[in-house]
Amino acid sequence: MLTNRKEIQIEWGDCDPFGIVFFPRYFEYFDACTNALFHRALGIKKAEMLRHYKIAGIPLVQASCNFLVPSSFGDVVHVESCVTNWGKSSFTVQHKLFRGGTLAVEGIEKRVWTVRLPDDPSKAKGQPVPKEVIDKFR
Amino acid sequence: MLTNRKEIQIEWGDCDPFGIVFFPRYFEYFDACTNALFHRALGIKKAEMLRHYKIAGIPLVQASCNFLVPSSFGDVVHVESCVTNWGKSSFTVQHKLFRGGTLAVEGIEKRVWTVRLPDDPSKAKGQPVPKEVIDKFR
Amino acid sequence: MLTNRKEIQIEWGDCDPFGIVFFPRYFEYFDACTNALFHRALGIKKAEMLRHYKIAGIPLVQASCNFLVPSSFGDVVHVESCVTNWGKSSFTVQHKLFRGGTLAVEGIEKRVWTVRLPDDPSKAKGQPVPKEVIDKFR
Amino acid sequence: MLTNRKEIQIEWGDCDPFGIVFFPRYFEYFDACTNALFHRALGIKKAEMLRHYKIAGIPLVQASCNFLVPSSFGDVVHVESCVTNWGKSSFTVQHKLFRGGTLAVEGIEKRVWTVRLPDDPSKAKGQPVPKEVIDKFR
Repeated sequence: MLTNRKEIQIEWGDCDPFGIVFFPRYFEYFDACTNALFHRALGIKKAEMLRHYKIAGIPLVQASCNFLVPSSFGDVVHVESCVTNWGKSSFTVQHKLFRGGTLAVEGIEKRVWTVRLPDDPSKAKGQPVPKEVIDKFR
Repeated sequence: MLTNRKEIQIEWGDCDPFGIVFFPRYFEYFDACTNALFHRALGIKKAEMLRHYKIAGIPLVQASCNFLVPSSFGDVVHVESCVTNWGKSSFTVQHKLFRGGTLAVEGIEKRVWTVRLPDDPSKAKGQPVPKEVIDKFR
Repeated sequence: MLTNRKEIQIEWGDCDPFGIVFFPRYFEYFDACTNALFHRALGIKKAEMLRHYKIAGIPLVQASCNFLVPSSFGDVVHVESCVTNWGKSSFTVQHKLFRGGTLAVEGIEKRVWTVRLPDDPSKAKGQPVPKEVIDKFR
Repeated sequence: MLTNRKEIQIEWGDCDPFGIVFFPRYFEYFDACTNALFHRALGIKKAEMLRHYKIAGIPLVQASCNFLVPSSFGDVVHVESCVTNWGKSSFTVQHKLFRGGTLAVEGIEKRVWTVRLPDDPSKAKGQPVPKEVIDKFR
């Protein structure tokens, strides 16, 4: 199972008046980690992935996080990301954010391989993930 | 059970290249909704709440969302928020975001009533939520 | 000269570990204020404006702010916005953010009325602002 | 004159429905670049800098950007940052963001070396930048 590792520098502007990371920023980090994971698996950047597979994106139907240990500006953390499940058109991405050797945040995203409707580009629907895509995560 | 209603205008800058709300923004909306709920319940703003109850904040230990229907810039949505459970030092906030009459996003936050350690202000710990606070949500 | 007034609630998540608004958030506020000004002038939301005038957006070529007085979470401020100059395809928007009666932040945006190139939608160029648009700001 | 170079990966979530970087994100990038420049000059991270010099932060009194060439998700850009002027308590930081060999965005920040008032920590004022700090940028 392909796992990607991404290093993240926590920035001043990511932190709140408490002095710790404002929690929605973790979801932003994990979105970037999912894109990095797909980049690594497919060998192409997201913009090219969208064009190549004629999809509009991989939006979420579900996201959740457990915040175990806070982090603050100046901390350098790393995230390990992998796809833990492939459904028909949906898939699940797991992220583990470590601060030093400590697991600090765990996140789960459920996403859908999504195309725009040809008749009405303002609407979108899920579509089976191509087998060649799934194979590249093995 | 006290429920607060907050109207939110979806902004251009909240949306991604797909044209829909970038999902971490929903967690930002819900954070603002929790603050609005406490403001309504306690009758004081967050800054004064922190001073009055000598807490450092109400950070999260868990957050999750189900994204049912996408929204886009220009949409005006509303969120209904309430505390669904009071633990000892933790509590659960539920948010339901409606677009028109349709439930579009459901979110759950688990938060902790948190003080800084007197000996080491860089550290923090949970503390029982005062009964007078809980009573104001009834 | 049409001036729009928009009220903004400063949120916890807009503030940094100093406890004041993280300055890029002011530029986000002002972007929303420009959209609100156009909405008011044209009577249509941004999404419809883009469709109606066949433009891709009104991106910036220049932005600047003077930060005179800081604001913090819980503050309710208001912004007065107007177009101070119409060039051929560009125009200048001025924003004044007030905290109570005090001018707290002044911002200037220079933007361009922008279309995608028909031959290559990945590219864009400025186009004269329609006279009927300009007239609606008088 | 010390110049720091920072590489930035443009993320999906930094881009707007036009498909290009939402302009306030450039100000966020530049804030991170200023912190990286000070880190390099002083050899300590921002959190330690605040403690060591007993300051509350280096907030802005002015910020401006010229947006010359747009960037989009997947682009890797780099920023060259330096202090171009030291006033008494204020200083000016210049940022040049390059996409490949092309100058894409130029930014200027005017910041103040700021302490909290001992009598009223909710208030702050500028204070002369220590000579030993300035010397480290030479």
